[in-house]
Amino acid sequence: MSILDWLLGRALATHEEEQQQLGPTAGIPVLGLDALSSAAYGPEAALTLLLPLGALGLRWVGPITLLIVVILSIVYFSYRQTIAAYPGGGGSYTVASENLGPRFALLAGAALALDYVLNVAVGISAGVGALISAVPSLLPHTLLLCLGILLLLTLINLRGLRESGIAFLLPTYAFVGTLGVVILIGVVKAIAGGGHPTAVSPPPALPAATQAASLWILMRAFASGCTAMTGVEAVSNGVPIFRQPRIQMAQKTLTAIIALLIVLLAGIAYLSWAYGIGATDPGKPGYQSVLSMLVAAVVGRGLFYYVTLGAIVTVLALSANTSFADFPRLCRVLANDRYLPGSFAVRGRRLVFSQGIFLLAVLSGALLIGFGGITDRLIPLFAIGAFLAFTLSQAGMVVHWRKLGGKGARTSLLINGAGAVATGITLVVVAVSKFAEGAWLTIVVVPLLVFFFSRVNRHYLRVAQQIATIAPLELPELTAPIAVVAAGSWSKLTQQALKFALRLTTDVYVVQIRTERDVIEDLADSWDLLIGNPARAAGIPPPKRVTLTSDVRRFFGPFVDFVQKLEHDNPGKDIVVVIPDLVMSHWYENILHNNRGAFLRTLLRMRCGSRTVVVNTPFHLQE
Amino acid sequence: MSILDWLLGRALATHEEEQQQLGPTAGIPVLGLDALSSAAYGPEAALTLLLPLGALGLRWVGPITLLIVVILSIVYFSYRQTIAAYPGGGGSYTVASENLGPRFALLAGAALALDYVLNVAVGISAGVGALISAVPSLLPHTLLLCLGILLLLTLINLRGLRESGIAFLLPTYAFVGTLGVVILIGVVKAIAGGGHPTAVSPPPALPAATQAASLWILMRAFASGCTAMTGVEAVSNGVPIFRQPRIQMAQKTLTAIIALLIVLLAGIAYLSWAYGIGATDPGKPGYQSVLSMLVAAVVGRGLFYYVTLGAIVTVLALSANTSFADFPRLCRVLANDRYLPGSFAVRGRRLVFSQGIFLLAVLSGALLIGFGGITDRLIPLFAIGAFLAFTLSQAGMVVHWRKLGGKGARTSLLINGAGAVATGITLVVVAVSKFAEGAWLTIVVVPLLVFFFSRVNRHYLRVAQQIATIAPLELPELTAPIAVVAAGSWSKLTQQALKFALRLTTDVYVVQIRTERDVIEDLADSWDLLIGNPARAAGIPPPKRVTLTSDVRRFFGPFVDFVQKLEHDNPGKDIVVVIPDLVMSHWYENILHNNRGAFLRTLLRMRCGSRTVVVNTPFHLQE
Repeated sequence: MSILDWLLGRALATHEEEQQQLGPTAGIPVLGLDALSSAAYGPEAALTLLLPLGALGLRWVGPITLLIVVILSIVYFSYRQTIAAYPGGGGSYTVASENLGPRFALLAGAALALDYVLNVAVGISAGVGALISAVPSLLPHTLLLCLGILLLLTLINLRGLRESGIAFLLPTYAFVGTLGVVILIGVVKAIAGGGHPTAVSPPPALPAATQAASLWILMRAFASGCTAMTGVEAVSNGVPIFRQPRIQMAQKTLTAIIALLIVLLAGIAYLSWAYGIGATDPGKPGYQSVLSMLVAAVVGRGLFYYVTLGAIVTVLALSANTSFADFPRLCRVLANDRYLPGSFAVRGRRLVFSQGIFLLAVLSGALLIGFGGITDRLIPLFAIGAFLAFTLSQAGMVVHWRKLGGKGARTSLLINGAGAVATGITLVVVAVSKFAEGAWLTIVVVPLLVFFFSRVNRHYLRVAQQIATIAPLELPELTAPIAVVAAGSWSKLTQQALKFALRLTTDVYVVQIRTERDVIEDLADSWDLLIGNPARAAGIPPPKRVTLTSDVRRFFGPFVDFVQKLEHDNPGKDIVVVIPDLVMSHWYENILHNNRGAFLRTLLRMRCGSRTVVVNTPFHLQE
Repeated sequence: MSILDWLLGRALATHEEEQQQLGPTAGIPVLGLDALSSAAYGPEAALTLLLPLGALGLRWVGPITLLIVVILSIVYFSYRQTIAAYPGGGGSYTVASENLGPRFALLAGAALALDYVLNVAVGISAGVGALISAVPSLLPHTLLLCLGILLLLTLINLRGLRESGIAFLLPTYAFVGTLGVVILIGVVKAIAGGGHPTAVSPPPALPAATQAASLWILMRAFASGCTAMTGVEAVSNGVPIFRQPRIQMAQKTLTAIIALLIVLLAGIAYLSWAYGIGATDPGKPGYQSVLSMLVAAVVGRGLFYYVTLGAIVTVLALSANTSFADFPRLCRVLANDRYLPGSFAVRGRRLVFSQGIFLLAVLSGALLIGFGGITDRLIPLFAIGAFLAFTLSQAGMVVHWRKLGGKGARTSLLINGAGAVATGITLVVVAVSKFAEGAWLTIVVVPLLVFFFSRVNRHYLRVAQQIATIAPLELPELTAPIAVVAAGSWSKLTQQALKFALRLTTDVYVVQIRTERDVIEDLADSWDLLIGNPARAAGIPPPKRVTLTSDVRRFFGPFVDFVQKLEHDNPGKDIVVVIPDLVMSHWYENILHNNRGAFLRTLLRMRCGSRTVVVNTPFHLQE
């Protein structure tokens, strides 16, 4: 176990939970990385779609960003209320479950689960992509780098909440700090320059317009820009990770994240308009990210440029971490409602839900491997899940306030209602404008997930129904069982099994299966000497000897048939099958033994009724 | 099971064995393919090494082939005797085991085993190589073709002896027939042409000599030519596959194989001399196999040429089949002597030793995959194993005749003695001349195999020693066991387990493990109602309730500790641990349940003593 201690830290006691909980300082890196890192790609995504408009496109950056910021603010206020109303976490799933019923809850749960998995794959892959565009010689190692980062994130998260908070502190604040400084300098320069500052390192000239602005283009630009809002629901899903006073801590964290995000988005939009920075075509030579051009225009390509770009790359690669904080908690609430196996609700050695972390690592790892570490094509899938969850959560809150009633509730209802309408419209816009790019896949995967969850739930309900009882113990009649000893040749193993059987009952069958006749000696040869006479001498009925054979050398079939017949012929009696079991002193010695005992046990378990139980009498081999 | 029936045929009864046994007609394809196919590469290998001698090299083909034929004849006579003396099969291993002791036997066994595995990989790869040189567009599929043929051979052999005999009949006789006809026509033409026939399609002119003949070159040419003798031991290893009179059948088969091989070798040697056909450099453009040039020279490049070449390619690819006939039987004799697991001595559904067939397929498949289907570099390893086995077998026969004594024995002793000396010298020549090409690897692998066999044997001896007993059953004191029920919440599962425990003994502990406290209800809450009162009412001591907890949420540790303590505190009593076991109606439902029961059973088996046994009480879930 010492390697686990070294890798993950000592096991934490349950009462140490509180010390693991976070405040806003660590909460921002743990739950905010996803939202904040969106600033690095949301504006870029919108600008890319405005490319055909040429220089005129920049005019629209302001309005589009404004719209996004307005929706973001609405979403902020409504999630603030969700946090207060549902401090148990689970976010959209919980809200929908309490207010809209299980169907909508599952829809939200499935959308969120898919979103989290995609977020890990896309986030890591985007970070590695940015790193590779800086250091092209790493290209052949794309997948390896992706999987390495995934492994790192998994390990850090398995080490517990506190440790991930600490690990991501520096990159997060470096990102916010450097980008904030750039925006501050840029805005000061822009104002000093009367709205038209001179770039230190000028961006490439914008291409000529090939199209006029149309509603369709603007809609698609808006939909792409909305990816900047993904990750905003994270705090409301992860409320329980905060220390007391929990609601205030979570709300403070959410406020900080949204405020930072708005500053970053607005700053980037303003500066790209002021400096005349448009997107460059991603697939073509000479491509540069918007942020790279923007930082270079404001501060030039000096040391600070590289530090800022380094922080952006790091935060992109680590933005996946938000999923690691929330996905396991989503699995936990799903498990508590019996939509997933109960083990997702069990805390591991470091008080995190290790099974959810594993599952997320496996699923996103599979995506990364399947796409070879390049997941661009998954990006369109992504915003839909988030906005579906947003909308369901807001709609749920509307129902919640309506049920609650009262004065304060009316204002809250209005805020959440506005949120529901805004995010609902955005959802439709995103879905329509990204349908062809692959968003249709979400429409396939989410229902499949909902179906899966329902089937799992049905299974657990069936089990619960069949095993549930409140009846007190009925004391059984003390009928002695029938024992069946699976015997080989006469050995200490057989002897031990037979002794055990005789301690249970005097009704014992010793069954020898002789298919390859020359392989084991016939017990009949020395039966009386070894077994019959000693039993008679002790005054107990001697065990009954049974020899099973098979023309076609079937070993297990005849034995199972025999036990089934016994069970059938002796209603009301337990059948205890005793199988001698040779326990090796080293695990690798097992390959030298056919594990017939284990196979026989499995077969009897499947084929016989509940009155047949199997006992292995272990014989421990000495060194 | 119907898919197995379709793939492998119905299970054969043990008494059907005789109908599966072969005569010489089917015996030649089954056991002779390896030896006969050697004619396709042995002469070529010798001629390749004579290349530097130019046209003068052809002078030496006759003497070298003569030497090989002489040794082959000696080997033939001595294996004839081996067959008569050891009709149980196992060849070199058995002979060495009976006469030279276990060390030499293992050496022969290891050499043979390695040889068989190499033969499969090299044979298939050579056949595919020949096919690809005819149809170069198949090159990218080399490995797939190799593995496909391996799968085919495996399946055919799993279908039983008879079926493989029938399957390989046609290719074998097509090979011998077409090549025989070519040789006959060639010899007639050569004699008619006064020793210098005119080629229908003339071979390329021989290159100028770059070296003079030296002992070293001739020695290496001889050593390479000796690969023509591999596979000759097959019949003596596989005697039990023949029908009665077994010895005569086997001897007839061996005679036929050797006679055919000698005719082919001598014919090829004579014709390449007569037509002036030398090898061409394999690595260079314009490469043609010797047999291709020879067939073209004798009959021209018409239809018959292609039929003959097709037969050669097929036989090369299928030559691996001899290993499939013999390797499993070698494993069987090794298993009977406890050098391998006993399951290698168990006949599968079609009365062949299926485990040995699987192992051979897996090992040679791994070699093919490891070398990407191109196994040229393994060829040098190959003849050494064969000649080591030859030599040990002959030497063993010398000791055998010496022990036997008498008149006939003296002649036999002389024949085998000559064989031992001839093959021993050849072994040294082959080893020396191929050492640098990779034969040293054999010197590493064979001792490792011997070491492995010895360790396996030691393990089985240790087991046998520890479990062996001839003491009759001692009847136990009838001490009731202590039962420990691993309980969850109160359910039919727990109830069933508790009832089972109470039927065994009144000394019952009900143990609840509560690590995540909120997950299962505390049995203490309703203990008296559900369990205590009913027991008291029935006048038996109520079960003892135990609640185990763990600060760090360890589930299994506390339970195992508890059982260990019980075992320690109650010497002389059995501890029966009863674990409720929910049996699913579909296998895939198992992923929805943590298999804590199975894990707990395994832990108890490893950590507790032999007085602790585990019982799973199965509760079968209904549809």
